[in-house]
Amino acid sequence: MAGATAGPEIERLIQLLARLPGLGPRSARRAALHLIKKREALMAPLAAALQTAIDKVEVCKVCGSIDTQNPCTVCADARRDRAVIVVVADVADLWALERAHATNGLYHVLGGTLSPLDGVGPQDLAIGALVSRAHGPEVKEIILALNATVDGQTTAHYITDLLHEANVKVTRLAHGVPVGGELDYLDEGTLAAAIRQRTLF
Amino acid sequence: MAGATAGPEIERLIQLLARLPGLGPRSARRAALHLIKKREALMAPLAAALQTAIDKVEVCKVCGSIDTQNPCTVCADARRDRAVIVVVADVADLWALERAHATNGLYHVLGGTLSPLDGVGPQDLAIGALVSRAHGPEVKEIILALNATVDGQTTAHYITDLLHEANVKVTRLAHGVPVGGELDYLDEGTLAAAIRQRTLF
Repeated sequence: MAGATAGPEIERLIQLLARLPGLGPRSARRAALHLIKKREALMAPLAAALQTAIDKVEVCKVCGSIDTQNPCTVCADARRDRAVIVVVADVADLWALERAHATNGLYHVLGGTLSPLDGVGPQDLAIGALVSRAHGPEVKEIILALNATVDGQTTAHYITDLLHEANVKVTRLAHGVPVGGELDYLDEGTLAAAIRQRTLF
Repeated sequence: MAGATAGPEIERLIQLLARLPGLGPRSARRAALHLIKKREALMAPLAAALQTAIDKVEVCKVCGSIDTQNPCTVCADARRDRAVIVVVADVADLWALERAHATNGLYHVLGGTLSPLDGVGPQDLAIGALVSRAHGPEVKEIILALNATVDGQTTAHYITDLLHEANVKVTRLAHGVPVGGELDYLDEGTLAAAIRQRTLF
C-alpha cells in the first residue's frame, strides 16, 4: 500500500506490524511512521528488545510458562507454595493471576483448551505433564483456573477425571458477580451461581 | 506488571510495544506473547525489519517524505508532474493520497500544522523550503491538502499569504459529502459547503 512510495523495506515493516494482535493495516502504518520518527528513542530500543527476547526467552520446562530463566521465576521461587498448582490455559492467564496476586502457588500452562471444533485434543495440550506433576508427593491441590466457557469447562472436566487417581483435591474458580459489576447487566447463569455460592457476610 | 514472573527483558519488550500508537498496556502484553509464540515466523522477521528501517530509512531532502532512497521514490519518478506540488502536514497524509491515486504531482511534507496552543510556529515546519520550491520555474500549482481543522486551515491561509509573490496557483481540497456518506450524519458546515460547491451532474 505504502510500498510504491516508501520503499519495500517500510512496506515489509508495516506488514509485519499488522500481524500483531490489536493492530490492523491502518494502525500498523501509523505505528511504522511513529517508529521511524522516533528512531533513537523507540525503534532502536524495540529492535534490541526483540532481539534480546529472541535470544533469551524460553518455555519453562516445569510449568510451560515463558521466562528468560529456566525453570521460570515462579517455579524457582522457594517462597511459593509447592502444594498448590494453578492450571491455566495460557501464559496470558498466568500473568493476569500474578498481577492480581491471586495465588502463592505454582502454575501449569496447558497451552490452550480442548476444542473438538478447532481440532485441539488432549495430545495438543500439556495434560500428561500435569498428571505427572499432580502425582508428586508435595502436591495437595490442583486449582483449575480455566475460562468459564464451554471449551474451558470441558477441559476442566476432562482433567478432573484424569486426576481421580492422584491424591489431590481438584478445585475450580468461583462463579459470581465481578467486583464492581452491576447485577442488572449480568446473565442469569452468573446470577444463579452467585446466589448458589453465596458466602457469609 | 508481568516483570516479576517473566523476567525484565519481557517486561521491557511489553513497555516498548505499549508506546506504539494503537496499543495500550493490555494489548502490548498480548502482542508480546504473540511475538514470543511466533518467534521464527514473526518476532525474528520484525526485529530484522526494524533494523533494516533503522539503517536505511531517510527523510527525502526534497519533499520531506520518508523512504529508503533519497530523493524519495516520488521525487525521483520522471513520470510525475513537476508542475504540481501537493502540500501535506504529515507523511501519513502523503501515503493516504498515494493509496487513493489522488494526484500525479509531487509532494511537500510540512511536518505538522501551525498550532499556537501547542507552540508550533512557522519555524517548526518546512514552510521556507516550500516557498523556495514554489519559486522553481516548473511549478504552476500548489495544492494545500491540509486537514479541514482550525490548525490545518490556519496553516493553509498562512502559506497562501507567503506564496502571494510566487507565480503559482494556490488551491485547496474541496469540501463536500464523503463518498458513501449519509447527509443525515453530516454537520451543517459540510452540507453548506457541498451545496455551495455543487457540480454539474
